[in-house]
Amino acid sequence: MQPDLKLARSLFDDLDKNTCGTVGIWRDTYGKGEEYAHALVARTARDAGLEVAEDAARNLYVTLPGRDRDEPALVIGSHLDSVPQGGNYDGAAGVIAGISVIVGMKQAGVTPDFDITVVAFRMEEAAWFNVAYGGSHAAFGILPTSDLDVPRSDDGRPLAEYMREAGCDVDAVRNGQAYLKPENIRGYIELHIEQGPVLVSENLPVGIVTGIRGCLRYRFMRAIGEYAHSGAEPRSSRRDAVAATVQLAHCLGEDWLRREADGQDLVFTMGELNTNAEMHGPSRVSGETTFVLDFRSVEMDAMSGMADLAHQEASRIETNVGVTFEFGEESLALPAKMDPQMISELAETATEMGVPHMQMASGGGHDCVVFATQGIPCSMIFVRNENGSHNPHEAMEFEDFAQATRLMSSYVERMSAS
Amino acid sequence: MQPDLKLARSLFDDLDKNTCGTVGIWRDTYGKGEEYAHALVARTARDAGLEVAEDAARNLYVTLPGRDRDEPALVIGSHLDSVPQGGNYDGAAGVIAGISVIVGMKQAGVTPDFDITVVAFRMEEAAWFNVAYGGSHAAFGILPTSDLDVPRSDDGRPLAEYMREAGCDVDAVRNGQAYLKPENIRGYIELHIEQGPVLVSENLPVGIVTGIRGCLRYRFMRAIGEYAHSGAEPRSSRRDAVAATVQLAHCLGEDWLRREADGQDLVFTMGELNTNAEMHGPSRVSGETTFVLDFRSVEMDAMSGMADLAHQEASRIETNVGVTFEFGEESLALPAKMDPQMISELAETATEMGVPHMQMASGGGHDCVVFATQGIPCSMIFVRNENGSHNPHEAMEFEDFAQATRLMSSYVERMSAS
Repeated sequence: MQPDLKLARSLFDDLDKNTCGTVGIWRDTYGKGEEYAHALVARTARDAGLEVAEDAARNLYVTLPGRDRDEPALVIGSHLDSVPQGGNYDGAAGVIAGISVIVGMKQAGVTPDFDITVVAFRMEEAAWFNVAYGGSHAAFGILPTSDLDVPRSDDGRPLAEYMREAGCDVDAVRNGQAYLKPENIRGYIELHIEQGPVLVSENLPVGIVTGIRGCLRYRFMRAIGEYAHSGAEPRSSRRDAVAATVQLAHCLGEDWLRREADGQDLVFTMGELNTNAEMHGPSRVSGETTFVLDFRSVEMDAMSGMADLAHQEASRIETNVGVTFEFGEESLALPAKMDPQMISELAETATEMGVPHMQMASGGGHDCVVFATQGIPCSMIFVRNENGSHNPHEAMEFEDFAQATRLMSSYVERMSAS
Repeated sequence: MQPDLKLARSLFDDLDKNTCGTVGIWRDTYGKGEEYAHALVARTARDAGLEVAEDAARNLYVTLPGRDRDEPALVIGSHLDSVPQGGNYDGAAGVIAGISVIVGMKQAGVTPDFDITVVAFRMEEAAWFNVAYGGSHAAFGILPTSDLDVPRSDDGRPLAEYMREAGCDVDAVRNGQAYLKPENIRGYIELHIEQGPVLVSENLPVGIVTGIRGCLRYRFMRAIGEYAHSGAEPRSSRRDAVAATVQLAHCLGEDWLRREADGQDLVFTMGELNTNAEMHGPSRVSGETTFVLDFRSVEMDAMSGMADLAHQEASRIETNVGVTFEFGEESLALPAKMDPQMISELAETATEMGVPHMQMASGGGHDCVVFATQGIPCSMIFVRNENGSHNPHEAMEFEDFAQATRLMSSYVERMSAS
């Protein structure tokens, strides 16, 4: 039993040709590009003799029926939308992998013990409508109703309008009608290109994901000191907001190093850092900074440990430097742990097949987070990809995709064929 | 022999009443406010029987003739202009102190060994025309001719136009006609309010200035790294411009502490620090920062030591963090040392008189810098002042001014009466 990689290649080529703009890929949520991709996958599935269905949000479900149709299904999925000027692989690779696996099973005449369903989600990319995991949330009937009013980034028209025009049953989505139910799902697998550079630098085609990093973030932090003349104000009487912010960032950076040496999964980013342009003047000690503290980890403890340290150090610096830190609103996206048994079985299978791989955390979020939040055992397979994602330069080698998809196929076979 | 402090008080009151705006003091360079102040001082001097003169830039010279008029004169001075919404003391205190000293000498019937001239400079504040020490430069015939074209900050009309309307001989200024000549000046004394908080926190009315800090500045520094996803990019492959900038600032801050403990005069300020707002996004590792490094000291060695360290650390960080630092243009204002003999004689006099005082560096620049640059022995007396300068809340106690002016008077007597 082998995945139909020839089909996979032709699907990538078709999408590349038919959903490209002048620069990059444009598979806009509930727009022409996403619609083309869904129609292509649905047609392909029907041609292969698979069952095809849609939910109220027009997520697409392609099912290879199992021996016992009452048994909880195995779900394989990802999304088909892309960011504007995106690449061809972010999202689509996972759907195409799933399709080529179950088409391969069908071709080999294999009937799994239970249904295997490949889902193509919509609106995973928040670039069009600033909504998190819109398609998978709608599938479980848990899309926040306020999300339906979110305006599209460019023209300001609300999501509900786009959904209605695309033929969705918006009322059913609003009323929380669920197509997917946790009790009917035995597990979820998502293949995705790696959005970071780890597999490239480790020279490995495949990553087995241990967890999806959560994010504990202070988006609107401020240090408030006092503006003063840089020449006339001695150190002891300064209340220098920049110096205070540097001290805080330095302490957190040092602690990051310690945690990294300790084997903890963590990234810490101060991605924005600004003095107040209106109060500028190169001769001024700065009385204010605004900045972001962003902690991400698969372990809640690592994130909250850093946040605790930030509060502790901020107090110390407040006393020493005479500034005040305002932490502002704290936002938290919980980390999602992948299922330990699925991880170890995937790793075993990869080793048996001779697929070079490593275990690693996922930095970005994926539809998988929603399944994990619903208590469904989850796993993810990363494919090596150069140049990151969300840009036209995504560069996944087809041979790497083939290895990852063969791994998925073998794992699904192992799991579903008694 | 005593300074005429009653006169001093009435001059402060007159200026306060007649050069105030709705908020603060407005003695605009070559405008109504500065003109009022100059006319007031000239009238006062004439009434007291002193010699009054002006140069081509309409700086005002009030002279108490000495016994030998061919001997180099002692010059006492400061400026009469203020910033918009300024205070009543920045500049004016020095002129009024000088006037009350020589009026006191005149009243006491003292004839000094040499001329004593009080100068009231114009355009010291760069707030109106962005020109450094315009009045004192013009007095020595060294105003850069390009300064005459500098537009006024608010209406854009050039300095030369304002000067002409105020009755200056702009051609003479342009041709470098000098009214003051170094060989005719034995020394220069300037009294000024302290612009920083040192005397207030030390609870002392008077400071004797050891030097005026120079400034070695990198106004347009950049750290250039690479933008990346904050969740997906591990530490080892980040080229984080914020992290690099924090490391540089931290090293310089630590070295500042060491130098301070070592007794070196120094202030270090990173007064502006920004990530690129157009590339913002709280989920991004920042690929660029722009910032200022500003080192100030009375010792060239301390400033250049910090600049050397900045280059050295920048190289180290470039290697470790994978960023590039661009230092951009380096600007240097040389420090001005006060005359050691004048410092020690002022200090001796203060001690004899029981005036509580300390020796200290000046953080801001003053007309005195121009005299020091011309090789003239200089000294400055600082008066305690709350709330800094360049704002309506300057708060010099008259009693502190009186102590400082009595010190100046005694010192001038000691220096000039054989």
